[in-house]
Amino acid sequence: MGQLFERVCIVGVGLIGGSMGLAVRSREKTCRVVGVGHRKTSIDRALETGAIDEGTLDAAEGIKDADLVVLATAVGLIARLGKEIASSLPKGCIVTDVGSTKSEIVASLEAVLPAGVHFVGGHPIAGSEQRGIDAARADLFQGKVCVLTPTPRTDPHAMRRLADFWTALGARVVTLSPVEHDATLARTSHLPHVAAAALIASLRSPDTAFAGTGLRDTTRVASGDVELWCDILLTNRDAVLDAMNVFTAEMEELRRAVETGDRKQLASLLAAARARRDELWSNDSPSA
Amino acid sequence: MGQLFERVCIVGVGLIGGSMGLAVRSREKTCRVVGVGHRKTSIDRALETGAIDEGTLDAAEGIKDADLVVLATAVGLIARLGKEIASSLPKGCIVTDVGSTKSEIVASLEAVLPAGVHFVGGHPIAGSEQRGIDAARADLFQGKVCVLTPTPRTDPHAMRRLADFWTALGARVVTLSPVEHDATLARTSHLPHVAAAALIASLRSPDTAFAGTGLRDTTRVASGDVELWCDILLTNRDAVLDAMNVFTAEMEELRRAVETGDRKQLASLLAAARARRDELWSNDSPSA
Repeated sequence: MGQLFERVCIVGVGLIGGSMGLAVRSREKTCRVVGVGHRKTSIDRALETGAIDEGTLDAAEGIKDADLVVLATAVGLIARLGKEIASSLPKGCIVTDVGSTKSEIVASLEAVLPAGVHFVGGHPIAGSEQRGIDAARADLFQGKVCVLTPTPRTDPHAMRRLADFWTALGARVVTLSPVEHDATLARTSHLPHVAAAALIASLRSPDTAFAGTGLRDTTRVASGDVELWCDILLTNRDAVLDAMNVFTAEMEELRRAVETGDRKQLASLLAAARARRDELWSNDSPSA
Repeated sequence: MGQLFERVCIVGVGLIGGSMGLAVRSREKTCRVVGVGHRKTSIDRALETGAIDEGTLDAAEGIKDADLVVLATAVGLIARLGKEIASSLPKGCIVTDVGSTKSEIVASLEAVLPAGVHFVGGHPIAGSEQRGIDAARADLFQGKVCVLTPTPRTDPHAMRRLADFWTALGARVVTLSPVEHDATLARTSHLPHVAAAALIASLRSPDTAFAGTGLRDTTRVASGDVELWCDILLTNRDAVLDAMNVFTAEMEELRRAVETGDRKQLASLLAAARARRDELWSNDSPSA
């Protein structure tokens, strides 16, 4: 990795940014990691935990001489941050982000980043609902998928270097277009979040005494950070609405089978869901 | 418990029936537990694990001289089983069941059981999606809620004895009408199951490579037994449809907030769900 990058600047040293710093520093001692934070306390904490070599509150100073700049702030701030630092980015550097949605962010950054700076969008799928430097771990990306989202404007050499970087951090790199990424994550992550919130909202006060492990697991994601999830759902609006439409149609099919008492059809729908799920997580036994 | 019942007959020695046998036998050595099974192998296994003192394939023989008869077969078989054994039930005995839905079962059994036999519907909320005697445990009901569903026809003395019995097995006894039980469980258990199946059905083939722990947890219940869940959903049809209507309205409210980009409203809906969930499970941290 020392060959890949010599100076990595991570803007936003929370769970993902901090874990990237820990992962880089544990693997390659000659690579210098610079952290940029919004508050002095978070920079101090990142220094204490060993996630960064040096830290600053001044983004322009942090990105100076960096050959890789990682935008690891909250999803809703990434595009604005890119605009703010655009004119200070060193010529030839690679810029990436770790935002949970991609189409809006990639379009915004491609529009504002200057020529000679190479942007590649990214999204490591690892712990997006925990937050903060204290949850950061050097092995957070080990075996996890990191999606990179090149476009026709993406420099192939920058793309290869960034893929090698994530591979060195332990991730399995997968390439999708920004639109494909957003449609996929809408179905695998954003829709389940909305459904979990709606399940909780469907409860009536006396129900809570009868809540078993099934409801607990089904709604766990609804305890995620509210602002983060507003960012995600609103920056991926069209794909989320598409996924909700598909889900509504599936619910309607199940409802019809229950309403008409069509046991054969109901069994067929439940069996298909069960088979598909068991394929995904073969060793995950259901609880009540 | 020896004072409560002298001879308990459990018809259906799977997870729940077997665990009841283990719990009774570990607490009260003078109470005799008789198991009735559909296959000799399941009776042999129940004898081996110590869940029953004696076993038979003949329900009429098993219930002879019992002062408590527990119908612990699959939900869809309970009403028919009650009809079959009605004429063989000893005068004065108490009959209960452990079915996951109550209105249909209670109405059916109250209609067929003879005078002088005291029926009280029951539902221990414990592990309904695992199955089989091999998952049975003496402490399965420890600290779990057991709902009893008396009606105006229920004998108060039988109700008290059954409540004492479940309390002795470690359960917290809660009383609901059959209709209240079904409406509550529709929202806390049956609706989440339907939603989990619909979430899985909403996935497209390439999505599965991007499935994180959020989707895994949200859909865990969809790996439950298909026939059991057909029984549950179809014997609780009206309450399930009501719960689905409420859920659809909640989804629609979330959709509107996403569609119109109303961040304030979206944050308010997500925050309400988060607060309510955190109240239920304060120590359960979300994962990605």
